[in-house]
Amino acid sequence: MSAPLFEGFLASAEMGDVFAAPALVQAMLDFEAALARAEAAEGVIPAAAGNAIAAACRADRIDVDALGGAARSAGSLAIPLVKQLTARVAEVDADAASYVHWGSTSQDVIDTGMVLATRRALALIDADLDALCAHLFELADRHRDAPILGRTLLQPAQVESFGFKLVGWLAPLVRTRARLHASGAAALQLQLGGAIGTLSALGAHGPAIAERMARELGLGVAPGAWHTQRDTWVALACDVGVLCGGLGKIARDLSLLAQGEVGELAEPSGGGRGGSSAMPNKRNPVASMIALAAATRAPQRVAALLAAMPQEHERGLGNWQAELAEWPSLFLSAHGALGALADAIGGLDVATDRMRANIDAQGGQVFAEAVGLLAGRVVGKSKAHAWLEQLSRRAFAERRHLRELVREALAADARLAGAIGAEALDAAFDVDAAARAAGELAARQLAPLRATHAALGASRPFESRGTD
Amino acid sequence: MSAPLFEGFLASAEMGDVFAAPALVQAMLDFEAALARAEAAEGVIPAAAGNAIAAACRADRIDVDALGGAARSAGSLAIPLVKQLTARVAEVDADAASYVHWGSTSQDVIDTGMVLATRRALALIDADLDALCAHLFELADRHRDAPILGRTLLQPAQVESFGFKLVGWLAPLVRTRARLHASGAAALQLQLGGAIGTLSALGAHGPAIAERMARELGLGVAPGAWHTQRDTWVALACDVGVLCGGLGKIARDLSLLAQGEVGELAEPSGGGRGGSSAMPNKRNPVASMIALAAATRAPQRVAALLAAMPQEHERGLGNWQAELAEWPSLFLSAHGALGALADAIGGLDVATDRMRANIDAQGGQVFAEAVGLLAGRVVGKSKAHAWLEQLSRRAFAERRHLRELVREALAADARLAGAIGAEALDAAFDVDAAARAAGELAARQLAPLRATHAALGASRPFESRGTD
Amino acid sequence: MSAPLFEGFLASAEMGDVFAAPALVQAMLDFEAALARAEAAEGVIPAAAGNAIAAACRADRIDVDALGGAARSAGSLAIPLVKQLTARVAEVDADAASYVHWGSTSQDVIDTGMVLATRRALALIDADLDALCAHLFELADRHRDAPILGRTLLQPAQVESFGFKLVGWLAPLVRTRARLHASGAAALQLQLGGAIGTLSALGAHGPAIAERMARELGLGVAPGAWHTQRDTWVALACDVGVLCGGLGKIARDLSLLAQGEVGELAEPSGGGRGGSSAMPNKRNPVASMIALAAATRAPQRVAALLAAMPQEHERGLGNWQAELAEWPSLFLSAHGALGALADAIGGLDVATDRMRANIDAQGGQVFAEAVGLLAGRVVGKSKAHAWLEQLSRRAFAERRHLRELVREALAADARLAGAIGAEALDAAFDVDAAARAAGELAARQLAPLRATHAALGASRPFESRGTD
Amino acid sequence: MSAPLFEGFLASAEMGDVFAAPALVQAMLDFEAALARAEAAEGVIPAAAGNAIAAACRADRIDVDALGGAARSAGSLAIPLVKQLTARVAEVDADAASYVHWGSTSQDVIDTGMVLATRRALALIDADLDALCAHLFELADRHRDAPILGRTLLQPAQVESFGFKLVGWLAPLVRTRARLHASGAAALQLQLGGAIGTLSALGAHGPAIAERMARELGLGVAPGAWHTQRDTWVALACDVGVLCGGLGKIARDLSLLAQGEVGELAEPSGGGRGGSSAMPNKRNPVASMIALAAATRAPQRVAALLAAMPQEHERGLGNWQAELAEWPSLFLSAHGALGALADAIGGLDVATDRMRANIDAQGGQVFAEAVGLLAGRVVGKSKAHAWLEQLSRRAFAERRHLRELVREALAADARLAGAIGAEALDAAFDVDAAARAAGELAARQLAPLRATHAALGASRPFESRGTD
Repeated sequence: MSAPLFEGFLASAEMGDVFAAPALVQAMLDFEAALARAEAAEGVIPAAAGNAIAAACRADRIDVDALGGAARSAGSLAIPLVKQLTARVAEVDADAASYVHWGSTSQDVIDTGMVLATRRALALIDADLDALCAHLFELADRHRDAPILGRTLLQPAQVESFGFKLVGWLAPLVRTRARLHASGAAALQLQLGGAIGTLSALGAHGPAIAERMARELGLGVAPGAWHTQRDTWVALACDVGVLCGGLGKIARDLSLLAQGEVGELAEPSGGGRGGSSAMPNKRNPVASMIALAAATRAPQRVAALLAAMPQEHERGLGNWQAELAEWPSLFLSAHGALGALADAIGGLDVATDRMRANIDAQGGQVFAEAVGLLAGRVVGKSKAHAWLEQLSRRAFAERRHLRELVREALAADARLAGAIGAEALDAAFDVDAAARAAGELAARQLAPLRATHAALGASRPFESRGTD
Repeated sequence: MSAPLFEGFLASAEMGDVFAAPALVQAMLDFEAALARAEAAEGVIPAAAGNAIAAACRADRIDVDALGGAARSAGSLAIPLVKQLTARVAEVDADAASYVHWGSTSQDVIDTGMVLATRRALALIDADLDALCAHLFELADRHRDAPILGRTLLQPAQVESFGFKLVGWLAPLVRTRARLHASGAAALQLQLGGAIGTLSALGAHGPAIAERMARELGLGVAPGAWHTQRDTWVALACDVGVLCGGLGKIARDLSLLAQGEVGELAEPSGGGRGGSSAMPNKRNPVASMIALAAATRAPQRVAALLAAMPQEHERGLGNWQAELAEWPSLFLSAHGALGALADAIGGLDVATDRMRANIDAQGGQVFAEAVGLLAGRVVGKSKAHAWLEQLSRRAFAERRHLRELVREALAADARLAGAIGAEALDAAFDVDAAARAAGELAARQLAPLRATHAALGASRPFESRGTD
Repeated sequence: MSAPLFEGFLASAEMGDVFAAPALVQAMLDFEAALARAEAAEGVIPAAAGNAIAAACRADRIDVDALGGAARSAGSLAIPLVKQLTARVAEVDADAASYVHWGSTSQDVIDTGMVLATRRALALIDADLDALCAHLFELADRHRDAPILGRTLLQPAQVESFGFKLVGWLAPLVRTRARLHASGAAALQLQLGGAIGTLSALGAHGPAIAERMARELGLGVAPGAWHTQRDTWVALACDVGVLCGGLGKIARDLSLLAQGEVGELAEPSGGGRGGSSAMPNKRNPVASMIALAAATRAPQRVAALLAAMPQEHERGLGNWQAELAEWPSLFLSAHGALGALADAIGGLDVATDRMRANIDAQGGQVFAEAVGLLAGRVVGKSKAHAWLEQLSRRAFAERRHLRELVREALAADARLAGAIGAEALDAAFDVDAAARAAGELAARQLAPLRATHAALGASRPFESRGTD
Repeated sequence: MSAPLFEGFLASAEMGDVFAAPALVQAMLDFEAALARAEAAEGVIPAAAGNAIAAACRADRIDVDALGGAARSAGSLAIPLVKQLTARVAEVDADAASYVHWGSTSQDVIDTGMVLATRRALALIDADLDALCAHLFELADRHRDAPILGRTLLQPAQVESFGFKLVGWLAPLVRTRARLHASGAAALQLQLGGAIGTLSALGAHGPAIAERMARELGLGVAPGAWHTQRDTWVALACDVGVLCGGLGKIARDLSLLAQGEVGELAEPSGGGRGGSSAMPNKRNPVASMIALAAATRAPQRVAALLAAMPQEHERGLGNWQAELAEWPSLFLSAHGALGALADAIGGLDVATDRMRANIDAQGGQVFAEAVGLLAGRVVGKSKAHAWLEQLSRRAFAERRHLRELVREALAADARLAGAIGAEALDAAFDVDAAARAAGELAARQLAPLRATHAALGASRPFESRGTD
């Protein structure tokens, strides 16, 4: 497990690997290899040097553990890495060693390394978003019209369908995925600026070298070095933050619906999942736990990245380094949450009987607005609202069904009774009709969402197109 | 001044007005008027009621100060507002009063009110972004090739041009503005869902009413209620956060360049600007101060909005309300910073003589890499780097120009002297050539940026197209 | 209402007044008056000037609305305020006008003004903390042994008592109040440093003047100016942040227990409290909503204050100003939440019958650990745990009481039956015994807490002892 | 290096070890050993079981890498750890295996493990705070009266002494260390509550077992379980956040004073410290960089911890887990920054000649207030301020010394000349006198600070007193 103990526990092993030291070192070496090849191709360094350097760019030949301490005193991880790489090259070709990292700077290699790692991170996220959305589409179809309580401010409110509720979980994910495709494509750019962004050491060859490198690495070519212009980069992180918010919303709802007293949903269990070290009876919503942890942590990561934006002059002091340190755990959190939820939603226990039982237990109160609207046309909305408020309180206190009390009241009031027929009253209390109406709204949203989902699934923006 | 004392001081009066109570109340009333008109047009409420309600929707007829306390106990600002509006309507048409807010819910009116206010906020931001960018384009043209120190980690590094540096300020703003156009357009949507998002009280008329209202208010029609689906809304706020980061970067650089010991830039002074209550000699960079304050505060606002995303079920408990409270100050900060910087950059004092003097004071050290590359081709990069490091330290200690020391060293080393001709050496130390090269890079970026800037300026995405 | 619309709605009117412009201006004028008097007493300025200035220090003579714009261009609110004050003094005594603000600087007057406002803010918080704790003590006594489900990870776990649960709400509040007394006392210090903290303009009189001012204003004397040393100040804010966390925990629990399906607690209703604009049946937990909003927002305020700490040299650029803008809303949030919860807890509806019914509905599963420990002594803990896990699942699936299944199993297993007597089994499932044991633990904690509460109530650290 | 690549680079290896998986696992095992011993001593489990369990509690016998995946599905790291420990015990004593983790719960072992790790973390921080303060005391003595510019809003302001400035760095550290001693002592408490905090499985033995365990582990005994009462714990983290703010302030100042154009301070160099991969001339302020990164990140960690406080009922869902994941990097950041600064301050290059040269380069402007106060007594402060403002601008524009212009002006104005003697004028411009006055203020603060520093150094609150 490459992430810290209590962080790794909330993350996926795959994402842990993406940002583990060996992978980051290899990504940085991929930059150095691409740089050497491009410089050789442009005649800036000898062809032999290009080959020798590229051949040496293998993380398994680097003493990764030794980088940390040296980096700490040098002030940059790239310095000891380039030093080790140079030594490796020199073992084979002393002359070539002179041309390692030629014309580049620490931030070029580190930023591009992070970009390459981030592409892999986005691919993992994209795949699990696809899976999670697929599960949600499937559930939404299956339970399109299943009645469930709508709840506002943590109180029972009215009746909707579970399919309608699921669309409310799904739509933000589809939209966020589309945003991630766009912001990811914009952010996955080569960093190449040299010491202060002017590529001064490469003379007129700079742009051509950048083009070659970007092509090899499958990255975009930035209009200029973005050493201290982090807007495009941080905008991507913001979208990951928004994703975590959307996952947190699902997890919040799921965990509330899985409470013992509600019992409408349960995460899959078995195989040691969600147990307790003390209580044999526990069935904990572990996926929700992981997603809620991500939703608690991600906003602070985004804040740290935004706070790190005002970087001084041509390279920041402390803020860029803070950004580097904060970046991975945002992706670790997000993917941990995604994977857990995809798994949980894929095996979700849906208790439609409990959904209906919980509606019935409300004694018709959740139809108070519907009755109020009928009455409102006769006595005015305010009076009708007050009347229903009173009946609702009585129904609650006397543990009686609201419909009964309404009927009694109508029997005593000819004007109202004349306006509100028995059929209309029955319709106002019709659980299935309310759910069906919500299901139809859900269906209207599902069609275009499904089209977008399919289109997003067909594009593969984060597949490695280069050599990495 | 409508914002709190120490917040208003960092904000613009215009933005203060946008989110002041009277304007927000009017925006909410605009929603109620549009709702009534649309419902009347669809035959859901009587035509007379629609007219009477719409006519009463004027903030100057609402006791705004009384809303706070009542809202606090009701748990929603909309409840006392609707009550007051109903009373106003009843004064004119008792029957119409029954139809105020028909079929809608608190969050519909409050969210749409915030959307309408946010459109005005975005228009203000867009206008000042346009102005700030225009000033930066102008400066970048004027000083395209003016030599200035590039600085990394707060240390002198190499020579670039001021125009090149300005492009680094400008490009993120142009890009962020484009992002704001897109995310703003997506986020400026009508909220209309009724109690739990199903528009249950409007029956089959819901979608048509939403269409009419959106058209009247000049807003988009959301695919569904977004009561607890805040991704599109918060994504807009993220872009405002990124904007503040970009402004903070400019302010950081500007204030560093305005330090007494650097003296390359100064914010405009006079008219009481940037004075001190104690020190007659002070000329404080007040615009930078305001922008840096925004860059310190905005990340936390964005974090709060992201943290508020996991809203429970069909309406959140506490998180939605937190979002509402956090939203305005993000825009207040951003526009305060923008306006201050637009003003400061528009009247910026640029001391190109100090820029050159500060380069000259470096004694040629900022060309060490250039010399090192020349030497590197002979002795290898590592040795050349070490050699230059040593010469640099000596030059610093002996307060001599690096070129002199290099010349002495060459005189003593035939191999190197053979490889590094006098002309090449002169070129390596050529301040103007370095600046010109940077200026050319700047020019390459400026052309497409200018085209985007023009296109963004021509579109007017945040102009009120409705009745508000 | 002096706070912004959606912020004021979550705040108290009293706290709104504390940080409203007129009160802050008066607090700053109190500083100026104390400064003038102290300087006159020390002979630094003429006695007549001291009197004339002190007499003019009345906020009702200041055009508060005009301060904002002027402050914005000056870069400091103190500059236009001092200018207006000088004009007021000059109207009476032209000579005295020369001595307004003598030897002081903007940050002295602003920081001290904020300190004075903060003392009032802390007094409001302290009073409501006292009231909230008193209500909780009273409830904890009354329901000390009332059985209630303990819940972990949002799942039913075991049985405790409501009194025990209340101690878990109460203890952090008592401790946090004690911390606030200490950190408040430390932070309520005069700021007096002059231009760069050296009191250069007051010569040898500086310390004596500071002593006099602090005595008059009832503030502590700092060991030195704390213009850019914000540790003591921000540490106080951290404690307010921790307070909001504790309030959020109470609100989270309360709102979960108030869910329709749980129904164990309800916030007081009536008088328009917690209604809905659409649904007559709603009884929303409004106090919880306000406290949860505070718990969502406060962490971000604390982060902003911490982020603003690295202030440059002798006065910060942007960070101090950010701190000033962020400070009030932390206190507005905290007090809004406190007042709402004090009110709600004071009138809390406690449904002990629902608490027991919810336990009973668990079918004995919440005693699985107790049975497991009995069995564990015979078959080993792991086996016992697995055995109970299996029985629990069966009980859940078959909707039977766990005790029944255990009895059947014991009947079939002589070894276990020999070890687990009927009495021990009954004891393991005894709801009241479990609650009583928890109640006894609660009682052990309540005694010392009550003593601390009384001692905190007797001290009055935030009473104004000076002239403000 | 146990921390993630770009996080470890900013941290110390020692702190990395404290929170590395093996150390955390050992700390959790220390809890299990102490639990077993205490339960055996109280007769709750057999004495032999106590010994066998305690003997098996060795991290080197645990497959740490296997914990992650299992924990992820179980929802708790303690579950697979207890399972492995049980297997280890069973290999030796099958009966004893039954008593592993007896009566405890996941959160008991994890929280106590974090407490033990945090004690080591605090000991590291305390030691480096001691060293950093010692260096600052030494520097403050040495440079007590050395003149240096005071700077406000990043502009030259007046003259102070370097010793005075150093006291402004030092005093917050001494105070923060005292706060950490107090909040650390309060927070280092055993966690022992069992499933829901009632210690239900331990019957009447609970308190005695807790006492024994706390004594063995050298921890405090909490008044009750603090599973979801995190105030004391998070208050400690807040103090670490405040520490990072104080370190950030030092780093901000240091890095500004180390700018090429200022040149008053430099971090120690040599041995590869602060080099550049591109530029041989660079001498980067690496320690400042590390401390500024910490100051950027720490506020967000504190915010996450505060945001995680509203934990549900008797154990939180997601928030507790978020807290665990966020906790270590706060300490990693803080100690990384502390160690780097202790090192840098210990070898700081102080260029008192540049300090004076930078004062002189101000052409007397930094004495404008002093002259203004002299003139103010004659013409009134406002006029004097305006007069000096004008002279300051002229002096700047004409590059002349302010004293010269003042003299000319006095020569032309008999009234002023009469009031401002030549001696007073010289005194107003006396650099050394201004610095000496500041030095005396510094001395007044240093004496009590030194006493506190000594007392803090003598106490050893974070030494391990138990077996860990």
